[in-house]
Amino acid sequence: MNAMFVSSPAAIPPLRYSQRTERRSRWLTELTELITFPTISAQPQHRKDIRACANWLARHLAEIGLHHVQVLAGMNGGHPSVYADWLQAPGKPTLLLYGHYDVQPVDPLREWRSPPFKATIVGNNLFARGASDDKGQFFIHLKAVESYLRTTGSLPLNIKVWLEGEEEINSPNLSTFLNREASRLQANAVLVSDTEMLGAGKPSIIYGLRGNLSCELEVRGPNHDLHSGRYGGAVLNPLQALSEMVAGLHDRQNRVAIPGFYRHVRNLQPSDRQEIRCCNKRDKQILTDLDLPAGWGEGGYSLFERMTIRPALTINGLASGYVGAGGKSVIPSRGMARFSFRLVPDQNPQEIAQLLRQHITATTHPAVRSRLAITGGSDPVLLPRNSPVMQAAQRAVTQTWGVSPSFTRSGGSIPFVAQLHRRLQVPIVLLGFGLPDDDIHAPNEKMSLTNFFRGIETVIRFLSEYGT
Amino acid sequence: MNAMFVSSPAAIPPLRYSQRTERRSRWLTELTELITFPTISAQPQHRKDIRACANWLARHLAEIGLHHVQVLAGMNGGHPSVYADWLQAPGKPTLLLYGHYDVQPVDPLREWRSPPFKATIVGNNLFARGASDDKGQFFIHLKAVESYLRTTGSLPLNIKVWLEGEEEINSPNLSTFLNREASRLQANAVLVSDTEMLGAGKPSIIYGLRGNLSCELEVRGPNHDLHSGRYGGAVLNPLQALSEMVAGLHDRQNRVAIPGFYRHVRNLQPSDRQEIRCCNKRDKQILTDLDLPAGWGEGGYSLFERMTIRPALTINGLASGYVGAGGKSVIPSRGMARFSFRLVPDQNPQEIAQLLRQHITATTHPAVRSRLAITGGSDPVLLPRNSPVMQAAQRAVTQTWGVSPSFTRSGGSIPFVAQLHRRLQVPIVLLGFGLPDDDIHAPNEKMSLTNFFRGIETVIRFLSEYGT
Repeated sequence: MNAMFVSSPAAIPPLRYSQRTERRSRWLTELTELITFPTISAQPQHRKDIRACANWLARHLAEIGLHHVQVLAGMNGGHPSVYADWLQAPGKPTLLLYGHYDVQPVDPLREWRSPPFKATIVGNNLFARGASDDKGQFFIHLKAVESYLRTTGSLPLNIKVWLEGEEEINSPNLSTFLNREASRLQANAVLVSDTEMLGAGKPSIIYGLRGNLSCELEVRGPNHDLHSGRYGGAVLNPLQALSEMVAGLHDRQNRVAIPGFYRHVRNLQPSDRQEIRCCNKRDKQILTDLDLPAGWGEGGYSLFERMTIRPALTINGLASGYVGAGGKSVIPSRGMARFSFRLVPDQNPQEIAQLLRQHITATTHPAVRSRLAITGGSDPVLLPRNSPVMQAAQRAVTQTWGVSPSFTRSGGSIPFVAQLHRRLQVPIVLLGFGLPDDDIHAPNEKMSLTNFFRGIETVIRFLSEYGT
Repeated sequence: MNAMFVSSPAAIPPLRYSQRTERRSRWLTELTELITFPTISAQPQHRKDIRACANWLARHLAEIGLHHVQVLAGMNGGHPSVYADWLQAPGKPTLLLYGHYDVQPVDPLREWRSPPFKATIVGNNLFARGASDDKGQFFIHLKAVESYLRTTGSLPLNIKVWLEGEEEINSPNLSTFLNREASRLQANAVLVSDTEMLGAGKPSIIYGLRGNLSCELEVRGPNHDLHSGRYGGAVLNPLQALSEMVAGLHDRQNRVAIPGFYRHVRNLQPSDRQEIRCCNKRDKQILTDLDLPAGWGEGGYSLFERMTIRPALTINGLASGYVGAGGKSVIPSRGMARFSFRLVPDQNPQEIAQLLRQHITATTHPAVRSRLAITGGSDPVLLPRNSPVMQAAQRAVTQTWGVSPSFTRSGGSIPFVAQLHRRLQVPIVLLGFGLPDDDIHAPNEKMSLTNFFRGIETVIRFLSEYGT
């Protein structure tokens, strides 16, 4: 690796800067501070924390030497984002660095082994909500930029940084925001580190993301809660009706049962499937990792394919009735389910929402009433793999990790990527440093410190490769 | 009515006593005090409130002139009950007055129009948790006893009072308790006021109760919560599996789908069904009262029959996943459903539990694990209608209300009644003064003050009729 590194002389000082122990120690202290803000964008009580975190980030971006630092007000009363740039490299390309500083809720709290907003280092991992998704990952970008500016006083290309505060709620105001800010964010390429590698020492570049569509279904029955002894057997229980509707969203082949749902799903060439299969986890490994007795899903596809190139429907939450201590003999007057789709090319969230509405109307039992709300959506995206910026990323990864990155697809969704891809038609590199066992969105989320520091080296090399 | 009353001269002084305005006002103050204790037996945090209420009741029983007042410790760490008696009528029958001072949880609290544990009188109704089920109703017994003892200084028969503290959690320790206390509770007949009339001015005596069986089903999937983007489509979501299992508890004919469930259900004679149909609510009325678009249930039976003479299965609660503000893209690692059966003669809770276990095992998808817990159960009961105590109750009702009571069946369960009936083989009179719109177990529970005061008169007459 050193031999390869020497071939990129401009990068030497920032790389050395990033490798000093006392510096790495300071960076972990800074990341710990960033993690302290409970920036749960879904929960209104954290508005102030989100605002405070945005201000902290703005200060930090100025401290590392970026210009035009601004906290940009959220659209429609939403959460703010943070912008900064460094545009002193005329004639060089402009790279937009994207990240999001909001995080997922921490429930169930009792399953955390350390407080979610107190970064806790155990062995080679840093545990905290946001450690991997995405505070720890976009911080990699900032530390790469810092390493350049503090050593050479400049960057090998122009940089814009945009840190979002609503990614974990599906970026509901992104479209309006881009209407206002498209020119500010205009760039020749975008770097996003909000994905994961295939495993320790197995870097990957993601070229496909699933879209999504999130929904809330309410079923209402009698006009008030009833005593289940008195009325049981004569009243359709809203919870039972809800369970039946939820169960009816899949057919016996484990496929989504909504008529027309698969109409526009693009079938992959055998060669593409072969590529996906060879470099990704086998079914058995996935089941072992999750301690699952058996797999599940659409026939004819591996588990990894079901997770990435095939669409899916997931129930995210069910609630109603009395589930507190002891029991309660009640027929609740209503029940609620939250669920979300993951969509693949060429499914369209609006069209799927329409099909879902028809399906819910058709399957609502006449003895209850239902109400469906669409709470968010984003397009699936496939990114071209042959742009110069993609090649620069490949070289940077190979130099740093000693292996070339796998090109693969992710089952997740990053609404910003889908929208930016559609709106600005700019190449986007999804180069993530998370690991499959980072438990993002779950208790005990963590980030590998190896990946954190090696990520910084990778991004330093990437800036060099793309800028020169 | 007065003419009839005159035919029962021994009852005159207690009746007059009970009709004085200032006395009725004091009684409402006392009932208000009794209601103040949040005696929710299902919730451990109310242990002290339950103990305090038992002590309050013990003092009150002594104040109205009863003897041998005792707070009896709960079995197996359960809630206490309160006992008192008056046994100064040698040669006369002994009547056990049963009631329960524990109440249902108050969720959902936001739907209450007044604080649940602050008795609030609006028009002719007293609103509070426990107003009708069962504090308000057993208080009727106590005030009838007081009316006798304060006027004649004696009772026309021997009285035992037993007030339970675990009825709303299905009396889990009753069997053990009866092993210890059977001789203390031994009586010639039992009076229970924990049921409802057919409507205002339409008294009824219940001769049948459904049994019940309450259960909790947990479904576990992956060993921790997963990101639904990453794994959606390849992992059987425990909430989906749970929904399918819950949906699969009924068949397409709205019957319970557990094999063997109906095996021992006793079919009624057409004459019995005719009697039930003629004196009870019509389907249309029930649907209008509950603001329901359509009925539901087993074919071939009226809604009232489905609620009383037919068994039922009700989902009482569902919980899992994230249902807080905003959304969370999660495949939860587990889901939980609470449900309960109502059983009719000659179904047996133990046997139904066994059938359920087999059904759950058979319908658990191999990609998840399930765990079924039986949390309570009681036998269905049918009471003989021709005993002398039943006839005394009929006369007392007719004298007070001007109409004879309907004999009918209730869909609810009172484990005490089932067990006492089986263990002591003693006639039990279920003479309740609740109304169908009392909203017991639901927000805004209430008791009609007309029924409260007329209930006291009815019980005074019943003591007289049965004792003389």
